[in-house]
Amino acid sequence: MTVPDIGQLSDRVIAGDVRAVARAISLVEDRTAVSGELMRRLYRRAGDAYVIGVTGPPGAGKSTLVDRLTAVIRSTGRKVGVIAVDPSSPFTGGAILGDRLRMVGHSDDAGVFVRSMATRGRMGGLAGATSDAAVILDAAGYDVVVIETVGVGQDEVEIVRTADACVVTLVPGTGDDVQALKAGIMEIADVFVVNKSDLNGADRLVEAVSANLALQEPAADAWRPPVMKTEARKGTGVSDLWTVLETFRLRASDRDGRRRTRSEWRVRELVAERFAEEVERVVPATEVSRLIDDVVAGRLDPQAAADEIVARTRPGLGSGSAGPNG
Amino acid sequence: MTVPDIGQLSDRVIAGDVRAVARAISLVEDRTAVSGELMRRLYRRAGDAYVIGVTGPPGAGKSTLVDRLTAVIRSTGRKVGVIAVDPSSPFTGGAILGDRLRMVGHSDDAGVFVRSMATRGRMGGLAGATSDAAVILDAAGYDVVVIETVGVGQDEVEIVRTADACVVTLVPGTGDDVQALKAGIMEIADVFVVNKSDLNGADRLVEAVSANLALQEPAADAWRPPVMKTEARKGTGVSDLWTVLETFRLRASDRDGRRRTRSEWRVRELVAERFAEEVERVVPATEVSRLIDDVVAGRLDPQAAADEIVARTRPGLGSGSAGPNG
Repeated sequence: MTVPDIGQLSDRVIAGDVRAVARAISLVEDRTAVSGELMRRLYRRAGDAYVIGVTGPPGAGKSTLVDRLTAVIRSTGRKVGVIAVDPSSPFTGGAILGDRLRMVGHSDDAGVFVRSMATRGRMGGLAGATSDAAVILDAAGYDVVVIETVGVGQDEVEIVRTADACVVTLVPGTGDDVQALKAGIMEIADVFVVNKSDLNGADRLVEAVSANLALQEPAADAWRPPVMKTEARKGTGVSDLWTVLETFRLRASDRDGRRRTRSEWRVRELVAERFAEEVERVVPATEVSRLIDDVVAGRLDPQAAADEIVARTRPGLGSGSAGPNG
Repeated sequence: MTVPDIGQLSDRVIAGDVRAVARAISLVEDRTAVSGELMRRLYRRAGDAYVIGVTGPPGAGKSTLVDRLTAVIRSTGRKVGVIAVDPSSPFTGGAILGDRLRMVGHSDDAGVFVRSMATRGRMGGLAGATSDAAVILDAAGYDVVVIETVGVGQDEVEIVRTADACVVTLVPGTGDDVQALKAGIMEIADVFVVNKSDLNGADRLVEAVSANLALQEPAADAWRPPVMKTEARKGTGVSDLWTVLETFRLRASDRDGRRRTRSEWRVRELVAERFAEEVERVVPATEVSRLIDDVVAGRLDPQAAADEIVARTRPGLGSGSAGPNG
């Protein structure tokens, strides 16, 4: 199955075949030539899943929270797909956490699919592949897709902010930088969770977030993000979190706006990918390498090198037309 | 000065005029049409500065460390430019920390320039603008440019890994996710700093990082990242850090490889920007909006929408030629 039959593979994904789902996600991770066609087919069958982003700083206990939330959602009979976005090694391109040992509690449950994802080195690659993976799980019949990510980078924020709902997980008693982090994700949260709520400072953190929210002046009918306490290790508060998420799901106005943002972002990303592919196809690697050599040696500036590469993809046009000042 | 005279502005930057430097950085942040021409001029005058990336998780005390490191470098007579990359608000596009109050100790010192930067919403925009800002400071005669960033996102890692030297700052006693974070930045570190070394667990953390490094089998002449302890609030260990960074700077082989990576990455980013600008110029916003509407309504899949946009930038070609399966 090195060259997969895309028609057959998409049929198997739609039928909920777990191995086909895993295979499909690998294809979008690797960005093979056929992944576009696969996504074309699956997109038509997606749109029913509730996509929940869970983000927060390292150490906030997101993994445990997602684990427990998965158990609660499963208990309602729904199938759950989990995408754990790992901060990746920029050199090897591999996921750091590798197999997610923590989800072993669900490993015998055919209603739970867990997958770690990491970038393959190209800019935006992680967010794009994550978005595709959510569509694959959606098309495969998973009712809820949970995307878990460390939420401080631009890509990571992008990933969760296009989810149908965004849970921001905080933890009491971290250093002063957490204030900055909090402010940065303040606007993307639909629900705040103060996890490890048995720790000192939990109530103070709840108050701080609530006070910060009170400063905002939302529209009369706007959703006001609740600030919840959980102790995920014991499972405390996780059912309440799911109840709130179910309530939020009913707010169609928020969802539609979010889905439009997500669609627009994904289309723009695919356009950028098409152009990058075109450069790879049209401009020989040796020539790109020579241009980079010139930049390193100070014979050429990066702007001029970029113009030359763009001009090579436009054989009929002068190179000047590609510049920003043309 | 709403439409700046680029020749005059670049001359003033090269002369070290602080207001011109600030203005130039604003131009690259806002990605105005003239910023390309400005960078073209400044690039020729850059290349002498020592670019140091400082990264690490929230709460590691990076800001204080950079503040103290700046003081140490200043005491050697060198001019220092600091670029603080803030996790940004995805909705407002603004920097979270705003003016960096913490650097007030240097506010009367003409030899220190401090600037916060945040994304303007476009993918990769933050890393590109940061890279340009470093070139501006370099051209303006700052001997050392320190780029400080929360180092868990893909863009953030990209920013620091292309610096001439990369300092990874860790802090004792954070949760289990820190293990993952550590692994993710293990390979980009030239120097490890265990900050807040008065806290419990500092020695254990130093040992853990050292043990992890010992597992690697570097080439005989490879740089072995030292693991240093600092207590930045008191200034302890910061002079030693600078001494190590000066030693590392002398290793031309590492530096040249890094600069090649940085040049290649920047050129590829500029190529992507050129294409995005072309789409903006050629495809009416209303048409993009209509395509997105179709995607949201399920009438079109994102792949097909992307193909249509790409095809519009190639009036002479059939739309099929732009697809991944052509």
